[in-house]
Amino acid sequence: MPKQRRMHLVAYLLAGPTAHHHGAWRHPEADLAVFTPQWHEHIARVLEAGKFDSLFFADILGLYDLYGGSFASILRCGGQMGLLDPMPLLAMMARVTSHIGLGATLSSTFFAPYHLARTLGTLDLLSGGRVAWNVVASHGHLEAQNFGAEQLPPRESRYDYADEVVEAVCRLWESWDADALVLDKQRGMYADPDKVHYVNYQGRWIRTRGPLTVPRSPQGRPVIMQAGSSPRGRDFAARWGELVFTLQHSKADMLAFYRDVKARVVAQGRQTEECVILPSVDPIIGETDAIARERQAFVNELVQTEAGMAQMSGHIGVDLSRFPPDQPLADMQLEAGSRGSLDVVLQGTQAQGLTLGEAARRFATSELCPQIVGSPGHVADQLQELFEAEACDGFILTPTLMPGMYEQFCRAVVPELQRRGLFRSAYSGTTLRGHLRD
Amino acid sequence: MPKQRRMHLVAYLLAGPTAHHHGAWRHPEADLAVFTPQWHEHIARVLEAGKFDSLFFADILGLYDLYGGSFASILRCGGQMGLLDPMPLLAMMARVTSHIGLGATLSSTFFAPYHLARTLGTLDLLSGGRVAWNVVASHGHLEAQNFGAEQLPPRESRYDYADEVVEAVCRLWESWDADALVLDKQRGMYADPDKVHYVNYQGRWIRTRGPLTVPRSPQGRPVIMQAGSSPRGRDFAARWGELVFTLQHSKADMLAFYRDVKARVVAQGRQTEECVILPSVDPIIGETDAIARERQAFVNELVQTEAGMAQMSGHIGVDLSRFPPDQPLADMQLEAGSRGSLDVVLQGTQAQGLTLGEAARRFATSELCPQIVGSPGHVADQLQELFEAEACDGFILTPTLMPGMYEQFCRAVVPELQRRGLFRSAYSGTTLRGHLRD
Repeated sequence: MPKQRRMHLVAYLLAGPTAHHHGAWRHPEADLAVFTPQWHEHIARVLEAGKFDSLFFADILGLYDLYGGSFASILRCGGQMGLLDPMPLLAMMARVTSHIGLGATLSSTFFAPYHLARTLGTLDLLSGGRVAWNVVASHGHLEAQNFGAEQLPPRESRYDYADEVVEAVCRLWESWDADALVLDKQRGMYADPDKVHYVNYQGRWIRTRGPLTVPRSPQGRPVIMQAGSSPRGRDFAARWGELVFTLQHSKADMLAFYRDVKARVVAQGRQTEECVILPSVDPIIGETDAIARERQAFVNELVQTEAGMAQMSGHIGVDLSRFPPDQPLADMQLEAGSRGSLDVVLQGTQAQGLTLGEAARRFATSELCPQIVGSPGHVADQLQELFEAEACDGFILTPTLMPGMYEQFCRAVVPELQRRGLFRSAYSGTTLRGHLRD
Repeated sequence: MPKQRRMHLVAYLLAGPTAHHHGAWRHPEADLAVFTPQWHEHIARVLEAGKFDSLFFADILGLYDLYGGSFASILRCGGQMGLLDPMPLLAMMARVTSHIGLGATLSSTFFAPYHLARTLGTLDLLSGGRVAWNVVASHGHLEAQNFGAEQLPPRESRYDYADEVVEAVCRLWESWDADALVLDKQRGMYADPDKVHYVNYQGRWIRTRGPLTVPRSPQGRPVIMQAGSSPRGRDFAARWGELVFTLQHSKADMLAFYRDVKARVVAQGRQTEECVILPSVDPIIGETDAIARERQAFVNELVQTEAGMAQMSGHIGVDLSRFPPDQPLADMQLEAGSRGSLDVVLQGTQAQGLTLGEAARRFATSELCPQIVGSPGHVADQLQELFEAEACDGFILTPTLMPGMYEQFCRAVVPELQRRGLFRSAYSGTTLRGHLRD
């Protein structure tokens, strides 16, 4: 009997008020203590009790300020901000857990490969092999200005540049053989120098000599996570990604993305199982479907128009502050490229026929991810359907209420998925890579 | 009655086998589990029970390989290596303590100001205001090769460059007013945008726009720590340093350094109390002076000649592998500059008249820091004498046995210092800056 295919579940976190849902922080039960270690430790414990494969932090190295030429709206309305460096948070979360994966988003553009390899390698070793690196080939003006980087690689080369960074980082992670540490006090031999190697990486942009200072972790090296969406980005994900996440607003889009990226994985000479593809969904759970729908309406109502306008501005690359929110979308004059981006948003949010402000608020409830709404059983049904249709290998969950949604999901939906044999009841190993191949 | 002047105590750590003493890791009681969180958490708890102002990690971004053109000796003999990134370690240590300061050495040359400000600011906020940044204006070939940095600022400008980095980092830390967070769910106001500011720093080398993403910590901003030794380095320390540490091998040298740096502090327009100066000492403690001396001889005997040769090579900038260890020092042919560096070592270790190997082994017992040897009372006497002579404001202790020396010191020497009114019996505040001004 073939082994039943099982879902992988990963939790999306952002160290700020808003992951995707711009009203969630205003919910009466929302815990806003994101600046305390306890907030993060609690989430990590909840997710590990729910047997999640991993959690990970998205990140942004600055405050968006396209809308109105200022960060005022994002700060005032609590928009998408990565307020804290994820690495210290993950270190703290590592200490209250023993199995769940710990993912950090770190830019391959703004951090040196030696630093990336060392900080991620350190946490991978200390956590017993549970780290993932979400590689973002950032190319944003915002981050570049904060990093004083006036010489970014050309936009069309950003994935070629990222290829070099990941190659160099992997070479550094491999610079210590697994048995290099000896720790023999008697002979005075701490490590075996024949088992540690220079890297001497020389690419077009990247150079690093090595070796790394960090011994090999139980996982070999951190898991590579990626979210490429353009054709070149998908090839990058297919080459390196062991965990690919994506925003797709419908089952049809998920199916198309899944088939396309799996084909690219095979074209890279890899096995399809080596790359787990997880679209993002935003669950809203209630005791009954009716309660869940009321909760959905309640939390969606908390989104402020200004937050939506600012968020949509960033997404389509247009400062929407020059348009009145009550303007019908059909009347908006935009350049062709921006109009195309807006049309994608409208299709994803089914917002045709609305005013700009209405569409923006709808966009800011979920940023194109499907809200999966219902009783625990009905949420499980919807996930099962997508999973069994091979639209995905599991899901990245985005919080619609922190920490409430994750608590509800782990208490009520996970047991339902386990009863159906769709999700693990216990971890079979201790490393993240082990969970992903489980 | 004027307030009695009190010592400040800080613990020197390096995430590897050797801080200064190259034999310590071979001691039968040495705990080599530096790759586990528990090792670090234990030390943090011990030092906080001892009411230390702070601990800090020194660091090196690579494996030294001047000696014999290879890192073989340092790996084999367990030399000075910073094997792990200090930031995840400090995050873990923050969670098992509530008062002690947490210092990280981070290079102002190889890390971008935005990253420095964000990672240190995050830990400062999460720890309730306990972080110190030990600024090193690194200019080493070793680290540059790992970071692929072919365009270092010229050596003579390295402190000018570091000035810009620290200015930019401080400006970023100040980009959020203390009361910028509002967290008002009802009004939908997360933060007050009028209390967050662009930085727009433009120096000769450094640019960063800001604002930082991290709200202000209870400490205002992390403490700046520095160890400048050249005249330009001392000026840098006098401008920025709130905690200055130094290696001086005798009381006379400590006195001279102390007077010089305090004068430079005043010349910068600061109060002398704003800059705490701590020379490094290596305690070796026994129940009696005789036992302590035997323990000293025992642990010094564990230093390997190869370790000493490799370490001294790095210090004087000469590959000593081309000299036989049994060669008398007097016979060694060295260029004038290297000869001068060697003479400093010889004076510091009182190693004139020895062979090269003997001198190297002596150097590797303490790297020019005084070993303070004796019963708890006698160790306290020696520290008191230096402190009351105004040779220092307290001490950086370096481990001669991990974790044994810190355990002994906190259990036996600290109570003695407290009985004499020379050291705090309880923390008076919760921030590191508070401890340093206590």
